[in-house]
Amino acid sequence: MTVDLVVKNAIVVTCDEKQTVIQNGGVAVSNGRITQIGESTALEQAAQNASNVIDGSGHILMPGLINSHCHAADSLFRGLVEDLPLEPWLQKVWTAEGAILNPQTSHLGSLLGFSELLLSGVTSTMDMFWYPVETVRAAREVGMRVSTGGIFFDGPGVDGATLDDRIASAEAFFEAFASADDVFPATMPHGAYTVGPENLKTARDITNKHGGLFSTHAAETKAEQADVEGRYGSSVIRHLDHLDLLDERTTLAHCVHLDDEEIAILARTGTTVSHNPMSNLKLASGIARIPDMLAAGVHVALGTDGAISGNDLDMWMALRLAATLHKGASQRADAVSTHEALGMATRSGARALGAADRLGSLEKGKLADMILIDVKRPHAVPMFDPVTHLVYSTAKSDVRHVFVGGEQVVRDGVLTRHTIDDTLDAVAELAPRIAATVA
Amino acid sequence: MTVDLVVKNAIVVTCDEKQTVIQNGGVAVSNGRITQIGESTALEQAAQNASNVIDGSGHILMPGLINSHCHAADSLFRGLVEDLPLEPWLQKVWTAEGAILNPQTSHLGSLLGFSELLLSGVTSTMDMFWYPVETVRAAREVGMRVSTGGIFFDGPGVDGATLDDRIASAEAFFEAFASADDVFPATMPHGAYTVGPENLKTARDITNKHGGLFSTHAAETKAEQADVEGRYGSSVIRHLDHLDLLDERTTLAHCVHLDDEEIAILARTGTTVSHNPMSNLKLASGIARIPDMLAAGVHVALGTDGAISGNDLDMWMALRLAATLHKGASQRADAVSTHEALGMATRSGARALGAADRLGSLEKGKLADMILIDVKRPHAVPMFDPVTHLVYSTAKSDVRHVFVGGEQVVRDGVLTRHTIDDTLDAVAELAPRIAATVA
Ligand SMILES: [Zn+2]
Ligand SMILES: [Zn+2]
Repeated sequence: MTVDLVVKNAIVVTCDEKQTVIQNGGVAVSNGRITQIGESTALEQAAQNASNVIDGSGHILMPGLINSHCHAADSLFRGLVEDLPLEPWLQKVWTAEGAILNPQTSHLGSLLGFSELLLSGVTSTMDMFWYPVETVRAAREVGMRVSTGGIFFDGPGVDGATLDDRIASAEAFFEAFASADDVFPATMPHGAYTVGPENLKTARDITNKHGGLFSTHAAETKAEQADVEGRYGSSVIRHLDHLDLLDERTTLAHCVHLDDEEIAILARTGTTVSHNPMSNLKLASGIARIPDMLAAGVHVALGTDGAISGNDLDMWMALRLAATLHKGASQRADAVSTHEALGMATRSGARALGAADRLGSLEKGKLADMILIDVKRPHAVPMFDPVTHLVYSTAKSDVRHVFVGGEQVVRDGVLTRHTIDDTLDAVAELAPRIAATVA
Repeated sequence: MTVDLVVKNAIVVTCDEKQTVIQNGGVAVSNGRITQIGESTALEQAAQNASNVIDGSGHILMPGLINSHCHAADSLFRGLVEDLPLEPWLQKVWTAEGAILNPQTSHLGSLLGFSELLLSGVTSTMDMFWYPVETVRAAREVGMRVSTGGIFFDGPGVDGATLDDRIASAEAFFEAFASADDVFPATMPHGAYTVGPENLKTARDITNKHGGLFSTHAAETKAEQADVEGRYGSSVIRHLDHLDLLDERTTLAHCVHLDDEEIAILARTGTTVSHNPMSNLKLASGIARIPDMLAAGVHVALGTDGAISGNDLDMWMALRLAATLHKGASQRADAVSTHEALGMATRSGARALGAADRLGSLEKGKLADMILIDVKRPHAVPMFDPVTHLVYSTAKSDVRHVFVGGEQVVRDGVLTRHTIDDTLDAVAELAPRIAATVA
């Protein structure tokens, strides 16, 4: 068997179930998959046969991060509307989106967002946006895996599509990408307060037919809970459960406002919660009951949400907040452990993608989605425990090299497939038109 | 008048009281002070006479950040003790400190911490540590301003000093640095739970005699409040007020657990609160009532605390948390405004140093402590409002150039006075001995 790539001499944080750390180790990669993982000395033979050998000295090697909730193209609107709570804020954002977005601008925004994410070490993203085919096109241009698919939204929405259009394009999306290994097809209704029960079920039926994923916003704000309760007589999670929408293929973004029974429902159904702490803080949505969810056995993954609520797409910020926010809010130092937080950004994200067998950790047979993090930096020395360092002091700018399926898509902090300056210039050129939408 | 430096073509965020922003502007600097600030076109003549002209295109020019609470040398112990609440955590940290710290290792740790801070755009730091003369020496080696001075701690402390030693060295510190423009001398008793009333007053008397500053930890945890209440019959802030320790020269770190009357005392006395949100979250101390303090008129500055609680020294993280954490915790989108947060990291820090006339904003006559931030990055485009960008999406790695008193101390992300690799190597060499203290 030919060896395409060996990385050695790194501190390997595998993120496997046993939390294995190899102080001086690496991986061998063939055909996009990890064929060997272990001590550097054991990789010598593979290195001699490899077409590419990378010296990971002074770096941590770990799996790429998985962002379980994003709207990458919304990066176009970063910082446009500030200091408002969710509902009035959404109205302004939707006005701007309506005026600006089309397939071309959505593609541009997705390129911007995915460039930022990939440079920061995120190798897979669940992304909800209006033109999912454009989302896939942008993800492929930079070299990231993506889960996306037909969006559902009652009323015209930004794309002006009818329900029939939505159903047709959701179906077409599955047909186009069913066999792709870099796309995890889904249906993505916006939320229970913007999509009625019938259309939620329609979206779910399509996903069920094709064996895909399902993701929606849920219980982000108190107002949303009250709205859904008022319309349907039950809170958001109960409502979704009654409609039979909750299982291990479902990812619910936010889940900030839950009662104990709703947490129990999420645990029982195997639903993934995508925790988006920066978005929840900045939009004043609240602080999700993550320690209670973990205690109940809910699967919690991590997300950045879009850059309109962030205002960047920083999974390292999400990771650090996941590990610290709940300690502070509960005044319990054991509220979320270092390993639990890191698992949210890796293994739990892979589970949300239905890809726990292929992604989320560095293990033999898994896809070689992995990143090298520079630890010769003033905030990384001394380093008594690499896991602690990853959770509490790593910054996105520490990510130097990124591999997706063994292909190097970021080298020395630069995208290899895509010229970012072109995207930045195109966005800067569009910016005055965007600003004018809220003037 | 000779012009030493002109920076032009930048987006200037002055951080002055009026929140002036100049879209294409800069500054002229002579003898370490800003002699002109305005549009780039108006700086042409100064630029022709200047010995150094810097093109700030694609950058924000703003005042250096001011870190109002730190223990830079504690960077030696970053990540050594994890997942414990403050009191048992402090016991372990103190054991490690006692085994490792002496003037030489404190100097090394301070060099490490100040290097990280200066590279991130922090130009002045209030720093409490055991060997303040070593702290000053390290700050001067990298080129940062520092407020520090004699520490007070009942019992032997890490340095093994007696009370007489402490008094003598606190006095000597004032005498040595009274006329330095890069040092703001202070006395720094550790806290009301570790220093008795008499010694607190002794420390304060020294500062009063010399017209210096005064800083201590206060109301960091519930347990501390209960401890002080139990010993002295009043809560921490009341206790300090009864001892006449609170005025505009006093900075209290943390102030997490306050009742309304304590907030009123801080407002009435003009005391500065140093808000350290990352430390408070990670150590499970709680969430300070910052919106209530601002509403009551308390001066709030920002700090990183030491890297043992952080685990880095990231003022941009502190800034982003100051602007977002309280929105989320209170579910009020106007809890802390963008401008209030930025003021904490700049003007309020300058006020805490007793240097509001010299630091904290870019204005004619002030010291040229300023930074240039790269905004041609994927998380900085588009940029509709530079202030929003600074608060919600700037990262420490975006800081490219740093000036202190007009001298360039960071160029293209590299320290100009100090070779960081030497420090990193020396710390890495010491690390096994540090690890052994908790083994
Ligand atoms: Zn969202
Ligand atoms: Zn402290």
